[in-house]
Parts: sequence; C-alpha cells; structure tokens
Amino acid sequence: MRVHILTIGDEILIGQIIDTNSAWMGQQLNLMGAEIEKITSVGDNYHDITENLNISQQQADVILVTGGLGPTKDDITKKAIADFLGVKMVFHEPTWTRIERFFNRLGRNTTPAHKEQCFMPEGAEILTNKMGTAPGMWFNHEGTVIVSMPGIPYEMKYLMENEVIPKLTQTFPGRPIAHRTILTVGEGESRIAQRLENFESSLPENLKLAYLPNLGKVRLRLTGRGDDQQLLEAVLDRKVIEIENLIPDLIFGKDKEDLASAIGKLLLERKLTLGTAESCTGGHIAHLITRIPGSSAYFQGSVVSYSNETKQRLLGVKPKTLESYGAVSEQTVLEMAEGAREPLGCDLAIAISGIAGPSGGSPQKPVGTIWMAVSDGKNHKTYKLQAGKDRLKNIQYASVVALNMIRKFLLD
Amino acid sequence: MRVHILTIGDEILIGQIIDTNSAWMGQQLNLMGAEIEKITSVGDNYHDITENLNISQQQADVILVTGGLGPTKDDITKKAIADFLGVKMVFHEPTWTRIERFFNRLGRNTTPAHKEQCFMPEGAEILTNKMGTAPGMWFNHEGTVIVSMPGIPYEMKYLMENEVIPKLTQTFPGRPIAHRTILTVGEGESRIAQRLENFESSLPENLKLAYLPNLGKVRLRLTGRGDDQQLLEAVLDRKVIEIENLIPDLIFGKDKEDLASAIGKLLLERKLTLGTAESCTGGHIAHLITRIPGSSAYFQGSVVSYSNETKQRLLGVKPKTLESYGAVSEQTVLEMAEGAREPLGCDLAIAISGIAGPSGGSPQKPVGTIWMAVSDGKNHKTYKLQAGKDRLKNIQYASVVALNMIRKFLLD
Repeated sequence: MRVHILTIGDEILIGQIIDTNSAWMGQQLNLMGAEIEKITSVGDNYHDITENLNISQQQADVILVTGGLGPTKDDITKKAIADFLGVKMVFHEPTWTRIERFFNRLGRNTTPAHKEQCFMPEGAEILTNKMGTAPGMWFNHEGTVIVSMPGIPYEMKYLMENEVIPKLTQTFPGRPIAHRTILTVGEGESRIAQRLENFESSLPENLKLAYLPNLGKVRLRLTGRGDDQQLLEAVLDRKVIEIENLIPDLIFGKDKEDLASAIGKLLLERKLTLGTAESCTGGHIAHLITRIPGSSAYFQGSVVSYSNETKQRLLGVKPKTLESYGAVSEQTVLEMAEGAREPLGCDLAIAISGIAGPSGGSPQKPVGTIWMAVSDGKNHKTYKLQAGKDRLKNIQYASVVALNMIRKFLLD
Repeated sequence: MRVHILTIGDEILIGQIIDTNSAWMGQQLNLMGAEIEKITSVGDNYHDITENLNISQQQADVILVTGGLGPTKDDITKKAIADFLGVKMVFHEPTWTRIERFFNRLGRNTTPAHKEQCFMPEGAEILTNKMGTAPGMWFNHEGTVIVSMPGIPYEMKYLMENEVIPKLTQTFPGRPIAHRTILTVGEGESRIAQRLENFESSLPENLKLAYLPNLGKVRLRLTGRGDDQQLLEAVLDRKVIEIENLIPDLIFGKDKEDLASAIGKLLLERKLTLGTAESCTGGHIAHLITRIPGSSAYFQGSVVSYSNETKQRLLGVKPKTLESYGAVSEQTVLEMAEGAREPLGCDLAIAISGIAGPSGGSPQKPVGTIWMAVSDGKNHKTYKLQAGKDRLKNIQYASVVALNMIRKFLLD
C-alpha cells in the first residue's frame, strides 16, 4: 500500500502552525506496514489542490487529505475534490440532522455556514466525526482511495483510529505486522546496541529492532512481519522477554508509559512518598512528577532553593558546607536531600544542584556540572552528571537523569 | 518570488521526526514577502527527489532543499541533484581543507566518509556552514534557484540567516517589506481585536495586522509593504506607538521576548526578589522563571506544597483555613503567598492552588478552578481562574496567568 499525504492550509505554508498531523499519520501508517512515499502541503488554493491530487493519483494507492473542511470561505477542499472527481456537490441530510441535534443539545442556533458544511461531493462515503461538525469522506476513484479529513488534530486522529485505519486494513489486507515498544533510560543508543549485539545479529529477517533516542531515554521498537498474526505476536512476546533479560536495569516501561508515572507506580507499591529539593532544575523535576494525574497520592512537594539562604533556611544545609565545598558539590546535595525529608514530610527525597549555564562555570566546575543525591534517611546515593552548555537542555536532561536515579534507588 | 520547499528523509515520512524546518523556513520567507506555494517531503529515494525537483522547477522561482547531506550511504540528495542538473560530481578542495582543520583542532582523525562529503555537483556555489561539516549549495538552473542545505535544524538556520536569505534578497529585490511584533498577555484574540477595531479599520491597504494566539498570550504582527524601506519603517514605528497607547496594559514585550524574562527585568529595575508557592502548578511557574539565564539574581525559590501538611509546615497556612475553606480557596492562597515570603526570603510571593484535573472536581469547585494570590507583605491581590479539563493545559495556562499577575502587581 503506497500512501501520499496532502495537508491543506495557508497557515502551514507560512509556518504559523507546524504540521504535526503528517508525522502522526506517518507513524500510524508505518505501524500498519504501509509505505508513505510523499507528504505535500499546499495552501487553500483550488488549483494547487487539484493539481497535487492529480500527481498523487498516478502514484499512490491511497491519498490522505487533511484540512480545508471548515465553514469559512477560504476553505475550498471539498469543491476542489468534487471537481477533481468530476462530480457535483450534494446535500447530506444525515449530517445536517446530526449537526442540528448537536446544537440543540447545547441550546445554540445553527448558522448558514453549518448548512454549507453538509454539502459533499456526490458518491462520498461519509465517515462520522464524533469530535466535530465536519465529517470525513472516503472516495474510490479509478483504483485510488482518497480520504478527506478535518485538519484539527484531535478530529483527524479520531477519524483515523476509528474509521480510516480499519477501512484501510480491510481494503488492503497486507502481510501481518506487529510491534512492541520497550522504554529505556540510563544509557545511550550505542551502549544499548552493544549490549543487544548478539540478540540483534541473531534476529530472523522478518524482525527488526529500531532505536529511537530522546534526551536521556531510548525507545526500542521491535517490528515483525509474517504470514500468521498469532504466531507473530507470540514470537514478539518471546523476543521482548529476551530483551528484558539482557537489559533489565534500563527498562522502565512499555508503549506510551511516562518515566514519572513508572516511578509513581513504584512508590504506590512500596507505600512511600517523595519530595524534591531542586536548585539548577528550578522546579522542573516537580513539574514532571505533578503532570501525572493522581501524583498527589505519593508526591509531597518540593523546595526549589535557588539561593544559598533558602538552602540553609528550608533544607538545613550548613553554612560551612556551602563555604567549603560550594553549592554545586556532593556534600551540599547530600545535605539538601537529607534536610528535605522532614520539612516536606516525605520518605524519600532527591536533591539536585548544578551549573545550568550558559554562564557561571569555572575551570574546576564547568557549565553542565550537576550533582544529585537521593536519601531515604537510612541509605543514600550521590551522582555527578556532566551535561552540556545549553541551559534548557541541561535542565531537561538532568531532570530525566534525576528521575532515573529515584527509580534505581527504589529498585535497589 | 514563488518558493517550493523540499525536505528529504525517511525519518520524516514515518513520523520519527516532525518537520519543524519547513515551518521555520516558511516563517522567514513569509517575513521577507515571498510566497511559499508548496512544501514536499520525500524519502531518501533517488527517483522521488529528482521527480519532485522536476515538478517544482516548472512552477517555482526558488527551491529550498533540506536534508540528505550526511556522509551515510542512504543520503543521496547530492547525487540526485547532480543528475537532475546534468552535471558530474567534483571534489571541492576548500571544503576538505576546512574539515581537516576542524578535526585537527579537535585532535581527531577524519574518516573516508568525510572526504566523500567534499564531492559536490559541478557548478555549485558553496555556502559555508560554520555549524557543521556539510556545506550548503546554491545553483542557478534554467531560471530557477535551487539551494541545498543540511537537515539539522541549527545548521539549516545558520545557512538561511547568513547566506540564503541575504542572497535571495539580492537576487529577487521585491517590494520592501517590514514587520513589528508586539507581545501581549491577559486578553484573548477577540477582546484585543475589539479594542483595536478603529485602529485596524483605519489602517492603509499596505499595512496588515495579524493575531497569533498561544495559551494565554497573543502575538500581534504588523506587516507593511511599500516602495521606500525607510519610510515604511518609520510608519510602522508610529503604528506601534498607537497600539501601545491603545492596549498598554496588555503589552509585555516585543519580538522574541519571554514573559518570564520581562518580569525578571521589572524585578531587577525595582530591586525586588520573587518566590513562588505552588500547589496545582507543581513547580511549573518556578521552572518558567528559572529557564531564563540570570534568573538567580531575582528568584529566591519556591515551595511546591502538594500536600496540606506541607502548606501548613512550610508556608504556615492555618489548619482552620484549610478546614473551613479548603485547599482551593482565596483564603488559602492568600495565606500561602503571605507565608511564603519569610521562608523563601523574597520581597514578593505568588501562590497558586487549584484542581488541575482530570478528576478531583466537585459541583462547587469543578476541575479547572484555580485560585492565585500575590503579596509583598503590604499589598495583595487575589484572582480566580476558571480553566478547562485538560491537566497539562491547565498547568501551563495557569502558569502564564500567574506570571501576568506578577507583572501587573509590579506595574501597579
């Protein structure tokens, strides 16, 4: 199945919005084994839309079109598709009924523009859009499937997941494909590849392992193709266990799990609470933890001690420690972690202090020098990270390393 | 000047990376008055590259190509361009000298792959890339300019800003164009439009005002075209003053300024220090403040009080207040703000407490109910925000509203 994507909208061409729809569709199609050959973005321009439909129709089995279905006058996708197909526009009564009911429920009136949205190119198979007023449309034209969807990401995603992907799978029953995603933290791509070298070289032709690194974390995606879906799933499950046995220390989850939510689960299991004492990360670790719904069940809070006085007053760091070793030192982060437990009322505390940059470094402690410590009152661990020169990246990367330090402490 | 963008890379088609390059180039070209007609992404595939160069050459004055210039074997852009132009590949000595020097300085050896990078299509005008090893290339082919750049964003941006845009401006001296960007916070797009209604309707044809909203902030971009650049700049400067006089309360900066850095400047001017006491935002306000280089000069720290005990222990909130009014209440945030000043040692404190969601709401206090307070010990302000149901959006939006509350308090 060869696929072209056509996204429509002036706002894409002038960079007012970034086209994230195409990347998401590309991921989904790739996962179902389709080959995405081309992504094209054009403006709300009748001629450019029809011309690119023409080009794609000669090369692709499927053209996925997004955007240009709103009721405003510059959205002309539907008219362009109708002319390209050589059909007229017809009123679609069920869509109108659905829109009327929707507005009635809200106690609001429909406008003429809503009626306009119910005109569709003749012969369109309507794909119900439960997330908005503009439905999706499916056409079969001279051997090519053309699908038109709204450009609003959550509407497009709803239609893709519930209508388009199931119909595509039915229309183009390809060779079965299956995936497993394993989430790792703590080592870079090349180190993981070293540890999986024998595993990888022994993989049969129909299984592939991809490394997808992102700021301290690496996703491993195992993809298999075969003739028997059930057999394939079983093979992948076995291979996942092999990977788990080879790098157990690095794996924190599967699929879309978040590192902070994995830590949340560990804390809940162990009935422990957490707190953070942050200097250079300035609250970012606490933010990553509290983004997770339900985190108040195990997160007590944080002291962001951005000044030496705050480190002394709220965390009980000794003035002498700061004087002798400096704020960025093993001794200081250890006192911060141990001093945070009581005021925050938490079982476990992590502390971090470093030079985020871009300035503030010295030959002994260059920008990117970051110390961290975890303590539960009985045991503690400390760690020194040497990061780069980019302030925001240092903050983000150090936060991931700190979360991983908590994870490892909990597993020890 | 009609421009096509062609981005190359399998990783774009399968959604492994989002093509942010095109959006950035679109913005820059739009600012210089060019019309971007089409953005195409294809894989590292010889046939797809030449075919799309062919299509674009018939329609565009300029084709900007990014990606596919690395030394690995799947990067075949240069070969495809050479064949499309009908020229052979030649070795470019100055680039080789530059790469050799670069590696010598690092004390590392070059590899055969680096020598490979110095072969270029004959007739290429070399654009020096100070950010990496692969240079940019500029071609004139049958009336069309074709520019090839690496796909790594900071290398592409360097080449665009320092080489490509100046050369394009020289090659296509269009009608002068100029821009001003005004940054606002505190009102939505439609309210601002109401206040600027008369201003907008009195704008001459050659001036346009665009609203670019983003989570509580709205950028106003004023674009002018004229025959005389100097005159145009003067007109825009006057128009900016008119806008400043109409919505002085909403404007926090110009161009790329950050709201948190605008607050930092105000604090430095007034020689005041800041602290935050955060419940529902979980450290995100502190993070936004401490992302800014130099923020330690005015930011003392934060208490993220995610539990009632922490609110009492570290911020001195009275148990009775929590009991009578709840953690999400005007009374509690006021006590948090006033109680944060001493332990954090700051002049000014902002406190925030709310129901970020997705659960935890009640009929009286639905999800999205967020209270905030600022206090400097003498004066205080409180504010209730009713946000939505999405946890992360609520955290981000409430943080912007809180920053704006600090800004307004400082200006009062």
